[in-house]
Amino acid sequence: MINYDQFLSRAAEHMKGSAIRRMGTVLAQSRDIISFAPGYPSPETFAWSEFTEISKDLLAGTDGSVLQYGPTRGFKPLLDEISAIMRARGVQTSMDQLLVTTGSQQGLDLVARVLLDPGDVVLVELPTYTGAITAFRNVQASMVGVPQAEDGVDLDALDETYLRAVRDGRTVRVLYVVPNFQNPTGLLIGLEKRRRLLEWADRRNVLIVEDDPYRELYFEDSATEADVLPIKAADDGGRVIYLSSFSKTLAPGYRVAWIDAPAPLAAKLEIAKQAEDLCTGALDQRVVFEACRRGVLARQLPILRRFYQQNRDVMIEALRREFGADVSWPAPRGGFFLWASLPDQIDSDAMIARAVENGVIYVAGEAFFVEEGPRNIVRLAFSAASHEKIREGVARLAKTVREELAAIETVAR
Amino acid sequence: MINYDQFLSRAAEHMKGSAIRRMGTVLAQSRDIISFAPGYPSPETFAWSEFTEISKDLLAGTDGSVLQYGPTRGFKPLLDEISAIMRARGVQTSMDQLLVTTGSQQGLDLVARVLLDPGDVVLVELPTYTGAITAFRNVQASMVGVPQAEDGVDLDALDETYLRAVRDGRTVRVLYVVPNFQNPTGLLIGLEKRRRLLEWADRRNVLIVEDDPYRELYFEDSATEADVLPIKAADDGGRVIYLSSFSKTLAPGYRVAWIDAPAPLAAKLEIAKQAEDLCTGALDQRVVFEACRRGVLARQLPILRRFYQQNRDVMIEALRREFGADVSWPAPRGGFFLWASLPDQIDSDAMIARAVENGVIYVAGEAFFVEEGPRNIVRLAFSAASHEKIREGVARLAKTVREELAAIETVAR
Repeated sequence: MINYDQFLSRAAEHMKGSAIRRMGTVLAQSRDIISFAPGYPSPETFAWSEFTEISKDLLAGTDGSVLQYGPTRGFKPLLDEISAIMRARGVQTSMDQLLVTTGSQQGLDLVARVLLDPGDVVLVELPTYTGAITAFRNVQASMVGVPQAEDGVDLDALDETYLRAVRDGRTVRVLYVVPNFQNPTGLLIGLEKRRRLLEWADRRNVLIVEDDPYRELYFEDSATEADVLPIKAADDGGRVIYLSSFSKTLAPGYRVAWIDAPAPLAAKLEIAKQAEDLCTGALDQRVVFEACRRGVLARQLPILRRFYQQNRDVMIEALRREFGADVSWPAPRGGFFLWASLPDQIDSDAMIARAVENGVIYVAGEAFFVEEGPRNIVRLAFSAASHEKIREGVARLAKTVREELAAIETVAR
Repeated sequence: MINYDQFLSRAAEHMKGSAIRRMGTVLAQSRDIISFAPGYPSPETFAWSEFTEISKDLLAGTDGSVLQYGPTRGFKPLLDEISAIMRARGVQTSMDQLLVTTGSQQGLDLVARVLLDPGDVVLVELPTYTGAITAFRNVQASMVGVPQAEDGVDLDALDETYLRAVRDGRTVRVLYVVPNFQNPTGLLIGLEKRRRLLEWADRRNVLIVEDDPYRELYFEDSATEADVLPIKAADDGGRVIYLSSFSKTLAPGYRVAWIDAPAPLAAKLEIAKQAEDLCTGALDQRVVFEACRRGVLARQLPILRRFYQQNRDVMIEALRREFGADVSWPAPRGGFFLWASLPDQIDSDAMIARAVENGVIYVAGEAFFVEEGPRNIVRLAFSAASHEKIREGVARLAKTVREELAAIETVAR
């Protein structure tokens, strides 16, 4: 039997599976589990009949390129639509800055490969998105966390962290942020802080990677379009690499997302993408293009905002009922997630086995920390489950926590 | 204006665009050009009506997972079909060895990332597939070429090359081969040589990456299923990482391919894929699964074999008519490509501008050499153009070569 460790690259030695993906596997293996784990959009909201119609039209066979290889940059008419979307978000862009990616995960991976060498420091929010952690780790970068306040990363801590890294002789090229309804906390960076982050990046000569999958999903009871203005909108100097996606607004089964980056970087990202998958699926891109062109996306957005806001309300109500004062969270004003602190004694990672037994899953908060973080937090996705399942799932979670607390007490005695 | 070079990783500094992709861009920009450049399958052969039917069934909305995120390993029923395909190819496999990839290009990229460190040597055929060159280059590996005979790589040269690299203190973990109807030469590795390659890899403790996209497209006038037996079929020791794809048999617009690797490596490849794109498109995988299950793939294969064999015949006839004895090639017994040597004076890369002017494109042979190679070769894909276009394109190519020779003569005088 061959020992395959001898063949692994240093990058491979350091690779670690994602906690979210692991929960996805648990979910796939059991039908009975209520999942608050992966941030799945609700298939109930997908525009099934429109997608059927579009597919039928595209697959008529009159245009062979629909199922062919395509340009690495992306399907030109889709890039035009993306350009219009960026304008609507307050960002002027051009074709040489845009690149279609196979989901935003590929965008993160390409950015990591093009910008980071082993040992380089990436500044990230504490906590931050695990998918980004994975992509940065795979190029052997070091992530250093910056604490967040209610309105986003603490600017003083950011600068101190930066200066410490530089004093230690490290290269710091990138600050990674999720400004809108952050994964995992649901927080929104304030507009004033967005401006100051950009100034800071300019002063310290750092690039900002702005990951923005959730911005269209603001909840109208507590946020507006004005609150989700991209940092990129004020980026006259070319400091910001902006990522966004159709996964949360149309469907993740179509792996279609995009990067808007300064042209010289977009050109490098394109070449990196050539090696990764040649091109994003031709049919997927055309379906997404048609969904934009035929107004399906525009019709979906208000529906999605209401849908996810309701799900959030149902989850908050259930949490209040089941937990009373034993759990707290920053109120999500958009997105998919509720970042819930359980009683201090709880270790949410250690509790997963009991949760699975009780038929509910979540992602343990620690997965989102690049350094030691609190152990008692869970990320709860309210996006995919039905109202009934949300209520039942929260009841199961409360039961799990009660049992866990009792078990801890028994051990303590 | 920011100088973005300061932000590039060492990997990005070395990235180079692919010559094939560049030709794809030329093609996309002009409708009038006849392309022998990218190895595109013919859309005429795609099972359009079956795909329409399948899509309609899948998009009925009864199964939400059709457009959802899915497991990184792939859609389980599709993995079962792939397992059956592997058995039919003479390879026993199991679920823990299989991984669906977003095209075989992703497979190559994942293999490169998991197995290779900067400076490691990859042994490749001379010439070899540019997509592999790109993937290996992006992890900063060094490729060292081994000359091929009519029946595949020269074994003595292979061992000498290996020993030289080791003597130079280099790490050699991987031999990359395309055994069936190689891209670009169209050559087939002989069965005896396949066996001996495996013995060699065992003796030298090297892994074989066997890239096999074309094997189903053997031409029945000169090859049989027996000729395309994978090296992996005799791989009892777990030496071979096998890659194959549905891009050439169903359609590349669905980005669905797979890897069959020893289980410990498959596990690492899966984690690398998590960071690259989370999962391959859910709908694409289901369409491919249904095309397998409903017998579409099995019905397509004999049709494709006849179709591409005819295209080859038309191209060979046209080359003979237009060029006489001025061009030669190894006879393709399958696949998409004809590897044509033009008169010695010709530099096929330098000739591209003239070819584009005359309305025909190809890929210059030099793109496939990792070291200095002959300058007078062109790779001609006979796969996608109609018979009429093949004839017209070859006439344009002949005209281009005549003009080029005349121009060279003029300069010489």
